[in-house]
Amino acid sequence: MTRYGAQFGPDITFLGIPAIDIDDQKALEQADVVIVGAPFDGGTSFRAGARFGPSAIRGTDYLPHDGSRPSLAMRTDGLKDLNVVDMGDVEMFSGDAKTACESLEKVIEKISSANAIPIVLGGDHTITWPDVTGVAKARGWGKIGVIHFDAHADTGDITFGSLIGHGHPMRQLIESGACRGDRFIQIGLRGYWPEPETLKWMSDQKMRSYEMTEITARGFEVCLDEAIKHAMTDCDAIFLSVDVDVVDPGHAPGTGTPEPGGLTSRQVLDAVRKICYEVPIVGMDIVEVAPGYDHADITVLLANRIVLEAVSALSRKAKDAKSGQTWNPNQPLLDGR
Amino acid sequence: MTRYGAQFGPDITFLGIPAIDIDDQKALEQADVVIVGAPFDGGTSFRAGARFGPSAIRGTDYLPHDGSRPSLAMRTDGLKDLNVVDMGDVEMFSGDAKTACESLEKVIEKISSANAIPIVLGGDHTITWPDVTGVAKARGWGKIGVIHFDAHADTGDITFGSLIGHGHPMRQLIESGACRGDRFIQIGLRGYWPEPETLKWMSDQKMRSYEMTEITARGFEVCLDEAIKHAMTDCDAIFLSVDVDVVDPGHAPGTGTPEPGGLTSRQVLDAVRKICYEVPIVGMDIVEVAPGYDHADITVLLANRIVLEAVSALSRKAKDAKSGQTWNPNQPLLDGR
Amino acid sequence: MTRYGAQFGPDITFLGIPAIDIDDQKALEQADVVIVGAPFDGGTSFRAGARFGPSAIRGTDYLPHDGSRPSLAMRTDGLKDLNVVDMGDVEMFSGDAKTACESLEKVIEKISSANAIPIVLGGDHTITWPDVTGVAKARGWGKIGVIHFDAHADTGDITFGSLIGHGHPMRQLIESGACRGDRFIQIGLRGYWPEPETLKWMSDQKMRSYEMTEITARGFEVCLDEAIKHAMTDCDAIFLSVDVDVVDPGHAPGTGTPEPGGLTSRQVLDAVRKICYEVPIVGMDIVEVAPGYDHADITVLLANRIVLEAVSALSRKAKDAKSGQTWNPNQPLLDGR
Amino acid sequence: MTRYGAQFGPDITFLGIPAIDIDDQKALEQADVVIVGAPFDGGTSFRAGARFGPSAIRGTDYLPHDGSRPSLAMRTDGLKDLNVVDMGDVEMFSGDAKTACESLEKVIEKISSANAIPIVLGGDHTITWPDVTGVAKARGWGKIGVIHFDAHADTGDITFGSLIGHGHPMRQLIESGACRGDRFIQIGLRGYWPEPETLKWMSDQKMRSYEMTEITARGFEVCLDEAIKHAMTDCDAIFLSVDVDVVDPGHAPGTGTPEPGGLTSRQVLDAVRKICYEVPIVGMDIVEVAPGYDHADITVLLANRIVLEAVSALSRKAKDAKSGQTWNPNQPLLDGR
Amino acid sequence: MTRYGAQFGPDITFLGIPAIDIDDQKALEQADVVIVGAPFDGGTSFRAGARFGPSAIRGTDYLPHDGSRPSLAMRTDGLKDLNVVDMGDVEMFSGDAKTACESLEKVIEKISSANAIPIVLGGDHTITWPDVTGVAKARGWGKIGVIHFDAHADTGDITFGSLIGHGHPMRQLIESGACRGDRFIQIGLRGYWPEPETLKWMSDQKMRSYEMTEITARGFEVCLDEAIKHAMTDCDAIFLSVDVDVVDPGHAPGTGTPEPGGLTSRQVLDAVRKICYEVPIVGMDIVEVAPGYDHADITVLLANRIVLEAVSALSRKAKDAKSGQTWNPNQPLLDGR
Amino acid sequence: MTRYGAQFGPDITFLGIPAIDIDDQKALEQADVVIVGAPFDGGTSFRAGARFGPSAIRGTDYLPHDGSRPSLAMRTDGLKDLNVVDMGDVEMFSGDAKTACESLEKVIEKISSANAIPIVLGGDHTITWPDVTGVAKARGWGKIGVIHFDAHADTGDITFGSLIGHGHPMRQLIESGACRGDRFIQIGLRGYWPEPETLKWMSDQKMRSYEMTEITARGFEVCLDEAIKHAMTDCDAIFLSVDVDVVDPGHAPGTGTPEPGGLTSRQVLDAVRKICYEVPIVGMDIVEVAPGYDHADITVLLANRIVLEAVSALSRKAKDAKSGQTWNPNQPLLDGR
Repeated sequence: MTRYGAQFGPDITFLGIPAIDIDDQKALEQADVVIVGAPFDGGTSFRAGARFGPSAIRGTDYLPHDGSRPSLAMRTDGLKDLNVVDMGDVEMFSGDAKTACESLEKVIEKISSANAIPIVLGGDHTITWPDVTGVAKARGWGKIGVIHFDAHADTGDITFGSLIGHGHPMRQLIESGACRGDRFIQIGLRGYWPEPETLKWMSDQKMRSYEMTEITARGFEVCLDEAIKHAMTDCDAIFLSVDVDVVDPGHAPGTGTPEPGGLTSRQVLDAVRKICYEVPIVGMDIVEVAPGYDHADITVLLANRIVLEAVSALSRKAKDAKSGQTWNPNQPLLDGR
Repeated sequence: MTRYGAQFGPDITFLGIPAIDIDDQKALEQADVVIVGAPFDGGTSFRAGARFGPSAIRGTDYLPHDGSRPSLAMRTDGLKDLNVVDMGDVEMFSGDAKTACESLEKVIEKISSANAIPIVLGGDHTITWPDVTGVAKARGWGKIGVIHFDAHADTGDITFGSLIGHGHPMRQLIESGACRGDRFIQIGLRGYWPEPETLKWMSDQKMRSYEMTEITARGFEVCLDEAIKHAMTDCDAIFLSVDVDVVDPGHAPGTGTPEPGGLTSRQVLDAVRKICYEVPIVGMDIVEVAPGYDHADITVLLANRIVLEAVSALSRKAKDAKSGQTWNPNQPLLDGR
Repeated sequence: MTRYGAQFGPDITFLGIPAIDIDDQKALEQADVVIVGAPFDGGTSFRAGARFGPSAIRGTDYLPHDGSRPSLAMRTDGLKDLNVVDMGDVEMFSGDAKTACESLEKVIEKISSANAIPIVLGGDHTITWPDVTGVAKARGWGKIGVIHFDAHADTGDITFGSLIGHGHPMRQLIESGACRGDRFIQIGLRGYWPEPETLKWMSDQKMRSYEMTEITARGFEVCLDEAIKHAMTDCDAIFLSVDVDVVDPGHAPGTGTPEPGGLTSRQVLDAVRKICYEVPIVGMDIVEVAPGYDHADITVLLANRIVLEAVSALSRKAKDAKSGQTWNPNQPLLDGR
Repeated sequence: MTRYGAQFGPDITFLGIPAIDIDDQKALEQADVVIVGAPFDGGTSFRAGARFGPSAIRGTDYLPHDGSRPSLAMRTDGLKDLNVVDMGDVEMFSGDAKTACESLEKVIEKISSANAIPIVLGGDHTITWPDVTGVAKARGWGKIGVIHFDAHADTGDITFGSLIGHGHPMRQLIESGACRGDRFIQIGLRGYWPEPETLKWMSDQKMRSYEMTEITARGFEVCLDEAIKHAMTDCDAIFLSVDVDVVDPGHAPGTGTPEPGGLTSRQVLDAVRKICYEVPIVGMDIVEVAPGYDHADITVLLANRIVLEAVSALSRKAKDAKSGQTWNPNQPLLDGR
Repeated sequence: MTRYGAQFGPDITFLGIPAIDIDDQKALEQADVVIVGAPFDGGTSFRAGARFGPSAIRGTDYLPHDGSRPSLAMRTDGLKDLNVVDMGDVEMFSGDAKTACESLEKVIEKISSANAIPIVLGGDHTITWPDVTGVAKARGWGKIGVIHFDAHADTGDITFGSLIGHGHPMRQLIESGACRGDRFIQIGLRGYWPEPETLKWMSDQKMRSYEMTEITARGFEVCLDEAIKHAMTDCDAIFLSVDVDVVDPGHAPGTGTPEPGGLTSRQVLDAVRKICYEVPIVGMDIVEVAPGYDHADITVLLANRIVLEAVSALSRKAKDAKSGQTWNPNQPLLDGR
Repeated sequence: MTRYGAQFGPDITFLGIPAIDIDDQKALEQADVVIVGAPFDGGTSFRAGARFGPSAIRGTDYLPHDGSRPSLAMRTDGLKDLNVVDMGDVEMFSGDAKTACESLEKVIEKISSANAIPIVLGGDHTITWPDVTGVAKARGWGKIGVIHFDAHADTGDITFGSLIGHGHPMRQLIESGACRGDRFIQIGLRGYWPEPETLKWMSDQKMRSYEMTEITARGFEVCLDEAIKHAMTDCDAIFLSVDVDVVDPGHAPGTGTPEPGGLTSRQVLDAVRKICYEVPIVGMDIVEVAPGYDHADITVLLANRIVLEAVSALSRKAKDAKSGQTWNPNQPLLDGR
């Protein structure tokens, strides 16, 4: 076991899109979106298994792996209408979080510097630290806003003696200055963590966190619209981080730290679509998919669709920018076909 | 292994209702509803397993298999207040889709000709082709409307070299003229299939397809009311086809091609009830239940309840037709008991 | 196998809170809430397995078992701000329901007599009979109201030749006079049981049962507010019984008699919180969690959180009683930290 | 839920054999073997679920349920060549072990009095107490020997405050005098139970227990031959009790108290066949099959085959008694066909 | 869904070996072994799912997919030391068994005509009919012997109205004259199928079938040696067909018609190795792997290793043919390294 | 999430034995055996999950957690007759293998220096590096022999860029000089790893590795006796390392890198017992138990019993050392009770 292509299993690309060599600068510059595998779960505080997220998210689906996915809703084939390529996995040994994160950060910076949008398939949430850091180095240190879907704030301090792990990336990003605390928006938090001191720290950073109680009381759409507006105020580069555990465990059991009472899969799909259509996204990750705890592939499929919603919306946005049209979710499917 | 009663497993009836011999014409004519097993999954393009749908849907339930199910909501015991009988399985070899469909079609035509309502337990969605064809032959070729709950349009062209399969029944039905394209209503579509040419074909047939984006944006009840109204305009025979994958995979994992972001089980139960109460139903199927992918029987139970909701509503409709009452969903459970 | 500590598995407490000896009267009198394990499933009419509910509900969770759970929503650490202790399991042999129930009843009466609130981890729903009986003996026979979340009415008569079992506790409680029939409120009923005679009996007792049809038609919040108001009218001691099967099987598969079409986990968490904050709760149980049928621990986690929501709300209520504040669910998480 | 046919699920017979009414004395007297369901798991000290053993063992199998199973090995169709009938389930409420056991005992006595061989499908091992007691009452109190396959001795004293349960049947049988302690042979014991006092008691009864260490050291066939010889010395009525957990958990995971290091499924199938062919069997049970813990039905299928091996061997024995032949396991399958 | 590469999922090769275009005649002639996917389960009489066998068997393994597997036992890297290539899947629609089998047969004939050894990854056992037919057309009609590992004889007549299916391939092969009945050797049969008439037919063909009873009584190695000797007597082209259900369900649960009491995985691995090393193999298939019923991938891994044992033994045989050495299983692993 | 007791879940001890504070030197010196949890899986090259090994192995079992386990086979209650204590978990963050291993090594050295035998519950096989290193530092650098049960040699070089991981511990131990290469005995190897260069290196170290082919050809008992004899020749301190994947995946599916064709659970239990009874054991670990991939707890139970066999044999050895007796596996269970 000396070297690997994909870190685990056969070397496949996301639904059959073209592979790219990350060192092929020319190809990189022509890409709109680059899929990156981050098969790392050494940062989890409980159930591991997210290392198999990249291969599972790439390989699932009952449709042919032909690099084409025409969205019924967005009326565009994002994988074809944009130049979406897959660079494979970054080598990330789960037993060495520090080295793994450094390797990932370099790749993300490279992609972002080429003005492509990295979409990173985790892996556990530790990877958002190198993800956003890499983007920030390329696009402007301290200028990146973050929209963060999650059951957990991930702003914790040292755990199990380590500064690196899936409980702390958001703190690391704000403390390092990579992104803006006052444009750091969290949606879907719930439960019994973190403790008050950490919440105090978050408040001091001017973060805006929507707990499920507020979301239920005020309405998801109201909160989402407010969040988007806030994110875009005086900020033109947003990273979108989706922890699949923001979704209720009934819809997404295949994850490491499930917290009951979350959003529905429908809500998250609609929200990701809306955000990618309306907001200036410069990078994205989808994390904490642990296939070993999934059932009948439903969580993996959801993660796959979250990526496709994002790509479809980015594609439609690019089209509409040229044509001057605006996407209308009320339009019947067969109208104007 | 030369002959069988039930195709798989012991020979049981739906929740203990009486068995009927399909060749007993007299008994057939006295039936209001005939349960038919269609244990076929040779038409699936991905996960097989729906062949076990009929035995599972018949045999599940924590209540006694006594042929009685008093509905709390509809205030009628559909299995007793109507004459509901079970003819067992049609012999359908999954390796020979053509012969299997012909066998099923003949049975359905026979039941429908006796003015009974066939409720077919699939099996994969291939069976809707013979189901509706059989009904159309009995009730009026080209006069049947269809209300179709599904994540997928099932209007595709040749797959794996075959004209028969679970991706094409709706196209076959419209192209053959068995049912009306302009009264073909689809609810719950989503995802990345079919491609634009097929959507164009669907539009040309004047189909009306509600994708989940429109349903979410406009509201499920608004869309459902509109759909029912449309179906009943100038059309007095409707077939109801329910693909269990219209439900979100979180509520219905036990299926072959799950697509995240679907309806809740509550929504589908309520919709089936409403449709069977308000619309002139002449046949129904419930398809794509694959017990091998289920967990704790939840998908199988849901399918069982979809059948019961239909039967209960048909029973209540018959009662109200006599008494002149109208069912009121707002009435408290214990009022007037 | 002559004696046991915990009935099954290692002797642990709920999330690491202090253990209490039920015979230590002084400690009992200082307790606000006493966790009680009722590892009994001899009363189930279908799938057994709820005997492992207590150990599973106590032992699950990805967070440290440190006896602390600061609620994001309620802004209190219920396990620390109240005196919450765990007495371990009552010895309940599933093969002898009668003796098991007597043992449990004595423990509950003792706790209730010490003015502590028992929170009983079931076990199947049989245990609500001794739970409420014990509370009624301590707090006032015939004065207790009950709010009961369940898919099933549990008001049945003899089953399998027995008067004791999970289908009859509510009948036993009303017939014995332990609690008030006219303050017995059921939420979430659905399906095909019980039959009309039993519903008639329920109506005669002036019970108020919200079936899912009414809940969907009128709105969950409307019904819940009405239910709370009704419960508190002329009644100042309420027992809260939560059967986890009130939740849709998609969110709570790990139970014995799942009935499709239920509430979401979010709705139940919010409702338990609201009830415990607004209503004079004197006891609670959470029942029918059968870990063997669960997937990825999602049902067990939900039950764990139902207990935590209750404790957090009780804690916040106690605080607000002193400070005169009122909890506001619309308040953003980080406001005022 | 007032009455039932089968206690759980649809009313089916073992692989489609004829049903018998236990009160039809004439039919009973014509039966060679009577299948009895004992759906009871109230006696388990750990995982419940064996209540579903009878329905699962009856209903499994990939072959048609046609009441015919020609044994390749024994060259007889036991289900047809003998008169094998199925009386359905004895009503056994798991919450009342005492009443349940009394009901079962009466049925077994009745069958045994008619000179038929009862084959009881458990159910947990508690049922062997009424099984053997019923046979002893019919065939001769104190004259029955027992061959008992199990990982556990089941000779324990009071557990969870009860005298009845799956840890004690063998003690109850010997103490009551129903069967002979000196012809009580146990095969497959292992692990860490019971404690020395109980072993002392067993020794005092002159029981003969083959622990897996002895079996491995001396060889399974040596031990089995010795056991059969011992059983038949001065004893002409033997009850065979097979606890499926005698088999290694790898081959039989679907059970309540699995103990690693057991026999293979092949060894147990061969042993049951040999015993039923060579020994004067007057009754048999197969217990502790808990389908909820099974995977891909392998344990249930094994239990089904254990019954079939027994019936096939009994059938062959009856044939050979007439023809004077002796079965030869070395004979090639197709020789002499 | 119009066309596909691999029939299901991403287009991967067996453990990363080179892909071959079946129409590249030159490449074909250079191949020693050609892996063929036969993703067909339309012939199963019970559980479907074997359609996913090819993708699962190709894609499993915890080692890198680098096209290299140095065998510890055989001291050769079969995938590298031979020219082993993968042609992908034959398009086989499970709903049309006839067409599917014709397509497969053509491919096999082509490979065999190029003097390469096809190793076919099933799929259900139906495929052995076209597999052996194709080889026979290329290598000599009526000259092929077969060694067949299976729990079932697969010599049945019409099932579910069809002549094609997984219960009849061996009958079809002998009746058509494609292979020799008197060199058709079956190992591992057991259970209760087929019935005596079919066994008579088998005997008439001079088949030699080792049932598990004979195997246990006489010893597996004795029987295997005898079988190999018989196969090679006056026959110089043998096809090896391995139905994974020959292995006990405890070692191979992921299959459609599991029959308890089978061989161990160790026995089958050793036997396949021995046969491929000693016998003139001209083709092979491994069938009935149904990943949906597997647990923790153990059956899929076993099938993968069965292929590797075959390839390793073929490779070692080729080497020894040149060097004159003979493989010695007693040699310690590190001797002579 | 700042600190923990047990790293995951409630703080329990192995089957209820007393806890010990590792810093209580006096208590440590009185201990015969110290159970140590090593909840680390950051070194796995494939499936993670072994971090939950310690809590699962400690907490499983259907018997009461009372710190007593009288062995039927060894006629001693190892947990009581020896002083066996549990120190809890070493804090091991899976994302930092280096620090984790250092922490474990210190604990092991401390225990070994107190002349107690550490039994370490893994965790992945990475931990054997610190386990044996710690023992060697205490008992004599370069003097320790190792008996190693495993499917894999674990003598690999750098993987995923790291020197630490579950593929290399045996290389590290021999290269560092901690243990003797010529008394390093491996049993159960099989499959396709490592490659020839590594095997050459192993041979150069004079390791003795029994591959399954040799074991099958020569017999397991012959090989085991030879191995024990070799280990004890001129070596009086042996460490026993058991990777649960040495057992066939059918008996032990819950592991990260299952390799078909292994030993039976019975063989491994017997071998561990024999080794601990006959060989001068100074430490032991049981590794690679990944509960998330287990079914019905069978792998976890097996690991639990492997520990118990070891403790029971150590206990019996101590007794026999005093009494001069020798344990006789042929003795019937009830003889001499």
